[in-house]
Amino acid sequence: MAVGEAIWPTIYPIEGVKLGVAQAGIRYKNRNDVLLIELAENSTAAAVFTQNAFCAAPVSVAKANLQSANPRYLVINSGNANACTGDLGERACLQTLQALSQTCGIPQAQVLPFSTGVIGEQLPTEKLVAALPQALANLDTENWRIAAESIMTTDTRPKAASRQVKLNGETIAITGIAKGAGMIRPNMATMLAYIATDASVSKTVLQHACASAANASFNRITIDGDTSTNDSCVLMATGKRQVHIDSTESAEYREFYSALEQVFQSLAQQIVRDGEGASKFVTIEVKNGRNKEECLKIAYAIAHSPLVKTALFASDPNWGRIVAAIGYADIDGLDASKIDVYLDDVQVVENGQRAAGYTEEAGQSVFSNAEFSIIVDLHRGSESELIWTTDLSHEYVTINAEYRS
Amino acid sequence: MAVGEAIWPTIYPIEGVKLGVAQAGIRYKNRNDVLLIELAENSTAAAVFTQNAFCAAPVSVAKANLQSANPRYLVINSGNANACTGDLGERACLQTLQALSQTCGIPQAQVLPFSTGVIGEQLPTEKLVAALPQALANLDTENWRIAAESIMTTDTRPKAASRQVKLNGETIAITGIAKGAGMIRPNMATMLAYIATDASVSKTVLQHACASAANASFNRITIDGDTSTNDSCVLMATGKRQVHIDSTESAEYREFYSALEQVFQSLAQQIVRDGEGASKFVTIEVKNGRNKEECLKIAYAIAHSPLVKTALFASDPNWGRIVAAIGYADIDGLDASKIDVYLDDVQVVENGQRAAGYTEEAGQSVFSNAEFSIIVDLHRGSESELIWTTDLSHEYVTINAEYRS
Repeated sequence: MAVGEAIWPTIYPIEGVKLGVAQAGIRYKNRNDVLLIELAENSTAAAVFTQNAFCAAPVSVAKANLQSANPRYLVINSGNANACTGDLGERACLQTLQALSQTCGIPQAQVLPFSTGVIGEQLPTEKLVAALPQALANLDTENWRIAAESIMTTDTRPKAASRQVKLNGETIAITGIAKGAGMIRPNMATMLAYIATDASVSKTVLQHACASAANASFNRITIDGDTSTNDSCVLMATGKRQVHIDSTESAEYREFYSALEQVFQSLAQQIVRDGEGASKFVTIEVKNGRNKEECLKIAYAIAHSPLVKTALFASDPNWGRIVAAIGYADIDGLDASKIDVYLDDVQVVENGQRAAGYTEEAGQSVFSNAEFSIIVDLHRGSESELIWTTDLSHEYVTINAEYRS
Repeated sequence: MAVGEAIWPTIYPIEGVKLGVAQAGIRYKNRNDVLLIELAENSTAAAVFTQNAFCAAPVSVAKANLQSANPRYLVINSGNANACTGDLGERACLQTLQALSQTCGIPQAQVLPFSTGVIGEQLPTEKLVAALPQALANLDTENWRIAAESIMTTDTRPKAASRQVKLNGETIAITGIAKGAGMIRPNMATMLAYIATDASVSKTVLQHACASAANASFNRITIDGDTSTNDSCVLMATGKRQVHIDSTESAEYREFYSALEQVFQSLAQQIVRDGEGASKFVTIEVKNGRNKEECLKIAYAIAHSPLVKTALFASDPNWGRIVAAIGYADIDGLDASKIDVYLDDVQVVENGQRAAGYTEEAGQSVFSNAEFSIIVDLHRGSESELIWTTDLSHEYVTINAEYRS
């Protein structure tokens, strides 16, 4: 199940970025499970990673390598997360980088590794290494779709977003892919996401842009509240266009960032729409709080409540569960009698109780849609936040009771 | 579904406590939905209530009345929570108390109201008031079972616990009932629980005992992480036995408290065993943390993870999901490489990775049981905590997608 039509967007390839895939048979049979991304020389890269204390071996290695050099290759496998695998896991990771660095004649530090799949099983390095020549052989700038497919696990759809922007008379492009459908409650970064541009962006600016855009997108979604051990989001710039972005204060940066945030948000929303067992795509907006933290706390309390999520699944406008979640979000001095709640533009709660004009039919007509908003007005400040989430369905239970992720 | 056999315990009636039930037809047909508890004169009472900011009208009224007088009657209805009902809800509550106070010739402040059921609908006061004479007419010290049944909502079993203790040559009894199966993640008190003793206990000591025992029982369970708007736990002492407990420092208090905690914990565990759709009763113990807060934070992260809960339902010892939950519990400076995890006495994780001797079969044999423990050793301090929880099953989704609670 997934929300809305699966639409593959128009993709603007990025000069300086080539993608190659291969079948390593790590866990899945008869499908691509290895992705290689090649970056042109002098490209810059930035990334944000999972905050999970049990971060996977490839996450530690990618972090360290990114600090010491500009990457030329990213090697990604699906089917095995190489997480909670200790020293053996780190060795498996380094062996893969060594093989690639020898074949391509580049330092190991210029390769970044990523893994997604089952936690706690050792990575079959020899299978991964054996598949690298195949991936190298089919590197191409046009391979975005098969690249997006190769990193899928419980995803039912490949995810991509792409934008063009004209800056100082030159057209630049931003294109990205992502994967993720479960264990989704990113904290500073999410699942796997790779976004590239052909503009020239300094590493400092790129890091700032990557962190800001991830915060406005991947850090605003939740499917099941579980933060993965492998979340990684990488932003790359090849500098193939004569557009130089060296300061976050410039007009160019603002235009570039605006398009970048659209790409990030599109990818993040595609992840929610493809949430495990998802039948609803719900925006939760909390308005007029004292600060952003309390707005987010309430939004996540609603989004994580199994009772709210099952009511979403049932298309039952059970607003009592929404106010109960607001009430236990542990907000200092919250005055329940000031709170209004809307389902799209239907007011259901006014001053903490059922709104005078509310009818079950009106609530029902909103909840029957596949996409809608729950809007909470706290009337105690001027800050707002919004997040995106899904329902909790029988299919979610089936997927996670049957799939060893 | 529920875990284990439904066992109705031996009940020691409490002299000075009478229980009466009635059919008001508030929401349920052909079953008792009103409970009246009558306390002998000079009884003392204490209580802890929900911390939900949207606390229900009866909770506000009960809190205020308990402060101003010793209660003689508790009136409880199931089927309607009288929560988020504003001024009308408070008026409905007070009308009920007024009717009872006039019939019995006692001040209104000596009546405590409680409600459980659907949130956001107005309480049909006239039905409740009309049923009071029936409840008064069948008041009896032996009615604990029909009392426990009358307060059930999505519960599949009545819940009770009872203990006798010999203090200074005199035998006292402690007997309690509780209800609750969903919207269970108490915070300072839970659902509805009524516990009485025939000892004489001063109000101050009773409040201390009630808060301590609730903290060691109802505040250590979670089914779905949702804290209800109506949680209330009342402890009553009739003083019919010549045992006086006036200080928390006395030997009598320690013995009394020990039995009391057993009654509270038995009721709390019965609630978890009867959790909506529950097929597993799981104890989560976190050992050797720096402080109790971090132990509880990790325990609840595991207990609330939908991925862990669906793995419990599937009897799949998917320990990767357990360590992922530990990792995102947001514990300052947590060193994943020091952590051990056990399933009962089977070590599954050693120093943050799969234990050398662990086999899937060993893990499977534990997870196949209906009751087991997940034990996490942090190796960074000397504090421990444990909580009790359930799995997330298809039946949970069905119950909450179909039942308007």
